[in-house]
Amino acid sequence: MAPIAFETVAECPFTRARAGLLHTPHGAIETPVFMPVGTQATVKGLTQRDLAEELGVRILLANTYHLYLRPGHELIRHMGGLHRFMSWPNAILTDSGGFQVFSLSGLRKITADGVVFQSHLNGDLHTFTPESTVDVQLAFGSDILMVLDECPEYPVSHEYARESMHRTLSWARRADEHYRLKTAESPARHALFPIAQGSMFPDLRRECAAALVDLDAGGYAIGGLSVGEPRPLSMEMVEATEPILPRNRPRYAMGVGMPAELPEYVARGIDMMDCVLPSRNARNGYLFTSRGRIIIKHARYKDDPRPLDENCRCYTCTRYSRAYLRHLFLSGEILYAVLATRHNLRRYLDIMGEIRHAIISFSFPEYLRCVRSASTDAE
Amino acid sequence: MAPIAFETVAECPFTRARAGLLHTPHGAIETPVFMPVGTQATVKGLTQRDLAEELGVRILLANTYHLYLRPGHELIRHMGGLHRFMSWPNAILTDSGGFQVFSLSGLRKITADGVVFQSHLNGDLHTFTPESTVDVQLAFGSDILMVLDECPEYPVSHEYARESMHRTLSWARRADEHYRLKTAESPARHALFPIAQGSMFPDLRRECAAALVDLDAGGYAIGGLSVGEPRPLSMEMVEATEPILPRNRPRYAMGVGMPAELPEYVARGIDMMDCVLPSRNARNGYLFTSRGRIIIKHARYKDDPRPLDENCRCYTCTRYSRAYLRHLFLSGEILYAVLATRHNLRRYLDIMGEIRHAIISFSFPEYLRCVRSASTDAE
Repeated sequence: MAPIAFETVAECPFTRARAGLLHTPHGAIETPVFMPVGTQATVKGLTQRDLAEELGVRILLANTYHLYLRPGHELIRHMGGLHRFMSWPNAILTDSGGFQVFSLSGLRKITADGVVFQSHLNGDLHTFTPESTVDVQLAFGSDILMVLDECPEYPVSHEYARESMHRTLSWARRADEHYRLKTAESPARHALFPIAQGSMFPDLRRECAAALVDLDAGGYAIGGLSVGEPRPLSMEMVEATEPILPRNRPRYAMGVGMPAELPEYVARGIDMMDCVLPSRNARNGYLFTSRGRIIIKHARYKDDPRPLDENCRCYTCTRYSRAYLRHLFLSGEILYAVLATRHNLRRYLDIMGEIRHAIISFSFPEYLRCVRSASTDAE
Repeated sequence: MAPIAFETVAECPFTRARAGLLHTPHGAIETPVFMPVGTQATVKGLTQRDLAEELGVRILLANTYHLYLRPGHELIRHMGGLHRFMSWPNAILTDSGGFQVFSLSGLRKITADGVVFQSHLNGDLHTFTPESTVDVQLAFGSDILMVLDECPEYPVSHEYARESMHRTLSWARRADEHYRLKTAESPARHALFPIAQGSMFPDLRRECAAALVDLDAGGYAIGGLSVGEPRPLSMEMVEATEPILPRNRPRYAMGVGMPAELPEYVARGIDMMDCVLPSRNARNGYLFTSRGRIIIKHARYKDDPRPLDENCRCYTCTRYSRAYLRHLFLSGEILYAVLATRHNLRRYLDIMGEIRHAIISFSFPEYLRCVRSASTDAE
């Protein structure tokens, strides 16, 4: 079996949804899966024990851009790799850093070779090439590596999108070649996923996906979504891309989405997602519950003795009231972030669990209908 | 048995140290005890489960000044009291707010009646009287309440210290009377501790203590220490005060101290201590270990794979390296505060456990000698 192998467990007869198992050197992962984001080798506010034991997280995402700048990939390699450095027993996917280079850093210059960018920490200049980001991620020892891609902003012209997509393609081929060369030296314990781009143009999305399939990668990502476009357009891009990707490989929609969108992506054949929303929104006072959102600073929660979500079994909901959480939020207390993040992540993981259960029990279309009618009712 | 009763379990034959049990409506507490500080109804960075189950904390301190201003004692009363509001099953001691009024608020004016002060949150004017702070703490439902005192800065003249001490005494009498009146209506489930003051003048300390003993309180505190005076002077003040306090009551040294000072206070007859040092220093990157301090930002820890303290059994030390903690600290990550606070508190609680064990096994003088020689060697 390949180090990263995907196995389909059940398929929905009416949608593109499927339930699977993604086997990695750090354990098997039930899909569809939501991957919490651990940007700087930590999911903000949670211990690794909270994540692995309490929330049951089997894979998380870390950011190559951030960890390359600080503490540096050589230090992480020296410390025995990212799993050991951050004391994380389960799987890790690292992005290529492309998205951060295009969204976070100040000055940046795209060349055929790669991208020169300025660190957001101290202004130093650095270069990422398709080869170098593979090397950085190999130093991390990530289970799943991502290729360097260009993530164009929204909107861009068809002309620019085409040029950018071809650059992403050429980078993917170079990254793949470099990766095969590097891992030929030692038994491969990883997989490298290329990223389909093409902005909001279905023809470019199709062209990109078709060309990437030639790489016979362990999995494929769809990037460039949630960059400001209307949501129906994101879904259209997935619908254009996904049927071209091999059915026996996991598909990863990068950086999505809101709770009600998760089953929509799954219905379109997506197996993996990641997003900062549950953790970032938690810290900003925006909480997801099975009955809609709660903005915790609102005065109505001042003396509300109820848990955030009566249907939730997370530590926060079994032990603390909305009134106490509001107090912690208004006081700027660390415990607020700790408890709120724990709840929001639990909510996302519960949704994924419900989705998987629905697929396996052949009730996914009904589940999807319920989510759609609930989100039409809400707000 | 009184709601708050103190029982001596063992006494050191050579020092004033003793091991005891402090019985409260929320459980028995082994003394000497260090009480973590939960200023705003949370010990910064730790969940109540971390505190109670992992660290074994049996009593914590919360701040009347902060909770009176936000969320307010009436809200807390309405929510069923502080234990329920913050979901804390064990004992709570609240201070009177005096120390914060004198150190945190901007404008403040002492009158015979009490003290008028400005909120550090929004500048609003408020008044604390000996009676009102008892009422606020009764609204909290604290197990141990403290009387309003004046905590003079250091240094002050003998004349000012005398005047201030007499004000504190008169406030203590008023608070005591008010407390007895209020709790006469319902079965008392609390104790009110008066606070001995007198700045750095042994004669005033003795006069104050002797007068407070007449109140026949459930316990006594020594306040006004660690306000900038040299440490030998703090010890001298405890030595002047403590022999006057009844031996069958717990004695609480407020706001102390550094790790090596803890057994010094115990040797002088102190049973209870609290301090923000372990938690605040943790957040500032200053960590206490059984082999001295660690300033985590130092470059020497950059690739140090060792735990903070090889002798420590806390979650942080059993799972994370100095290198990872340093990375989290430099990245300003919440997890740093979470892990560092957990370790520093564990260190303080371990020291108290060692002290208690030494007293019970009649080896406390030897233990004290070891601590003294180690702290002379260190730094």
